[in-house]
Amino acid sequence: MVALEKVKSLKLISLNKALNLIRESLKGYRPKVESVPIAESLNRISARDLRAKKNVPSYPIAALDGIAVRSSDLTYATPTNPIRLSLAKQEPLREGEALPISTGMKIPKGADAVVRYEHFRAKKDFFEITSPIDFGKNVVKIGEEVKVKDLILKRGKRIKPEDVALLMELGIKKLEVYAKPNLAIIPVGDELYEGFKERGMEAINYSYIILKKAESLGAKISLWEVSPDDEKFLKERIREACEKSDLVFTLAGCSIGENDIVPRVLHSLKGEIFFHGLNYNPSKPAGYSMVMGKPLLMLPGHVVSMVSSFYLLAKPLLKILMGWKEEDRVFFALCKSSLKVKKGMGNLILVKLEREKENYFAIPMGWGTNAIKNLVNADGFVMLDKDEAFEEGKRVEVHPL
Amino acid sequence: MVALEKVKSLKLISLNKALNLIRESLKGYRPKVESVPIAESLNRISARDLRAKKNVPSYPIAALDGIAVRSSDLTYATPTNPIRLSLAKQEPLREGEALPISTGMKIPKGADAVVRYEHFRAKKDFFEITSPIDFGKNVVKIGEEVKVKDLILKRGKRIKPEDVALLMELGIKKLEVYAKPNLAIIPVGDELYEGFKERGMEAINYSYIILKKAESLGAKISLWEVSPDDEKFLKERIREACEKSDLVFTLAGCSIGENDIVPRVLHSLKGEIFFHGLNYNPSKPAGYSMVMGKPLLMLPGHVVSMVSSFYLLAKPLLKILMGWKEEDRVFFALCKSSLKVKKGMGNLILVKLEREKENYFAIPMGWGTNAIKNLVNADGFVMLDKDEAFEEGKRVEVHPL
Repeated sequence: MVALEKVKSLKLISLNKALNLIRESLKGYRPKVESVPIAESLNRISARDLRAKKNVPSYPIAALDGIAVRSSDLTYATPTNPIRLSLAKQEPLREGEALPISTGMKIPKGADAVVRYEHFRAKKDFFEITSPIDFGKNVVKIGEEVKVKDLILKRGKRIKPEDVALLMELGIKKLEVYAKPNLAIIPVGDELYEGFKERGMEAINYSYIILKKAESLGAKISLWEVSPDDEKFLKERIREACEKSDLVFTLAGCSIGENDIVPRVLHSLKGEIFFHGLNYNPSKPAGYSMVMGKPLLMLPGHVVSMVSSFYLLAKPLLKILMGWKEEDRVFFALCKSSLKVKKGMGNLILVKLEREKENYFAIPMGWGTNAIKNLVNADGFVMLDKDEAFEEGKRVEVHPL
Repeated sequence: MVALEKVKSLKLISLNKALNLIRESLKGYRPKVESVPIAESLNRISARDLRAKKNVPSYPIAALDGIAVRSSDLTYATPTNPIRLSLAKQEPLREGEALPISTGMKIPKGADAVVRYEHFRAKKDFFEITSPIDFGKNVVKIGEEVKVKDLILKRGKRIKPEDVALLMELGIKKLEVYAKPNLAIIPVGDELYEGFKERGMEAINYSYIILKKAESLGAKISLWEVSPDDEKFLKERIREACEKSDLVFTLAGCSIGENDIVPRVLHSLKGEIFFHGLNYNPSKPAGYSMVMGKPLLMLPGHVVSMVSSFYLLAKPLLKILMGWKEEDRVFFALCKSSLKVKKGMGNLILVKLEREKENYFAIPMGWGTNAIKNLVNADGFVMLDKDEAFEEGKRVEVHPL
């Protein structure tokens, strides 16, 4: 029989409050730091503010292709008084000499400027130049790209290929990055349990979405065996997962039905429940707890609720554990049509982005059914505050899925 | 001595024309198709329009948690005349019976609607309901998500985790995707050659950027040994690369200097040069050729030119070879300040995106020096048509880097 008091226990709080509770629960948390070879640092999160220990370039180089010259030789060059420079045989360049040079090559001794190809004529035995050139023109000076002590990588930044290239340029061999958090994912439910035994991953395909999204953010995932609706079994699973992992996501089993055993199991593990119930549609049954010192997020079982809760709660939580401090990017768009939203609570609306000339339009997906189909068709989602409308022509932020 | 006629051979064409030449050279090209297990299809490009062969759901399921009921039992339910339903012991539900049900579960035989938890009271021996419910309410009908013959995956689409989940839901085991193009990358230049022998990848760090960007788009990369400025050597390398790969990028060696041997080598291999020279700053020396039936892109050696040319030419070329038909996403932004751009040609401007309330601002990076540093700091780039201005307050498209 359904225990009515369970229904009443879902106390809805605002998304802001929920995120603050997550942040507070991890106040002072610092992810572990590890040192990796530079070639393995791509997409990791920098654990240090890094300053350059050498100049780039470390010697003057040519900014473009042309000939390296002594600018003083060309002071009086004009179309009616062209100056002829001969090909230097060796360094340093002597008066009246020049040397062909490619972009990025070291400026030969004696030279101080580079005349670009378009600005001289190459004759049989000499170069002919018809205009003067400034001292230092087309030369990249020592330290002009990066000076010793320049900040070249900020703590909390995700490392791009361009960063790796600069670090290599600076001769850096190893880099301190934050360790990837170990995330245990535990799907819950008798049907999933039966399905998984019969058909494997296919039966827990919604877990696959969460797994891949968390992985692409940079977590190290272990997908745990599905737990049936058996409190003792799940308790052991969660205990083990908390021991072995940095954080845990349970998938499903956190709503208000008889079979929603996750909250009861957390109680029995003496987990502190920071919240259970979000005043944000469709993530109402989501919850957050600290169990055995590890953060545990309860994600609802309905696929749109699950994915919504991933973006609303799991991604910010993961970013804290990863030490990733960069802001998410959004697309600004105009609502293509109006949509009735749930009153009295925040709403996450799945949308398709459609470009028309110089604007994106956000086409809302609607609610209820067509859950997985809507997720497949959506490009992103719009977050609406409590009682905020989704109205045709309104400018909204679209978070990419 | 510098061969002046080489300088004159760089005939600049517009970016549009260049892209059209690339497209025409590959007219009728169809990437190979391969069949992969569904779990390996993530991020691959679908090679077929795929239609559903079964309904989702294949039986009616509960859209939310509650109790499954026969709606006809509740026709006369009011607050003053509550209807009591007893817990069904077995299927099909008989008159006056109900059964607790979770989201996604099969609707028991006899039942036709689901009353949500908030809309009934669970007493010791019965459920009490005070309002009628429509036939079919809170039930996801057969085929309501996906109907047999619905288009569920479009040819040319990159497969997301949500797509994989839907395909699993439909019981699809294998999927036809386009084969990843084999891309050979050949860095060219004496200094790179010497540097690579001494310091390895660190000396060809700009190649690393191209390698990782092409890889993340979905190409299979082989990074070839650096070629010195030796035409015979490079000719053999390119010949072999064309034999073994689907396309080739040469990095550097395509400008107008004495050491820019790539165009000469392509001539000697009887490669058809579709263009060499782009009227687009800073990608002027880029070029495109078809050699031994394989597309070959010449990317300039200067790091900003190289990365610019990657986005202007290499990415569209790769997308053709991958069969990837989706449009790139851009961020709309307002120019934070004005920037003088090169006259008489198109311009690619690196920018940093900065959010201020409800807008992104594009902060231009400027030209010339600070090449790699600018790339590290940039979030994207703006493409300006010939003689188009970069003016404070102007609305521009920012392509992410």
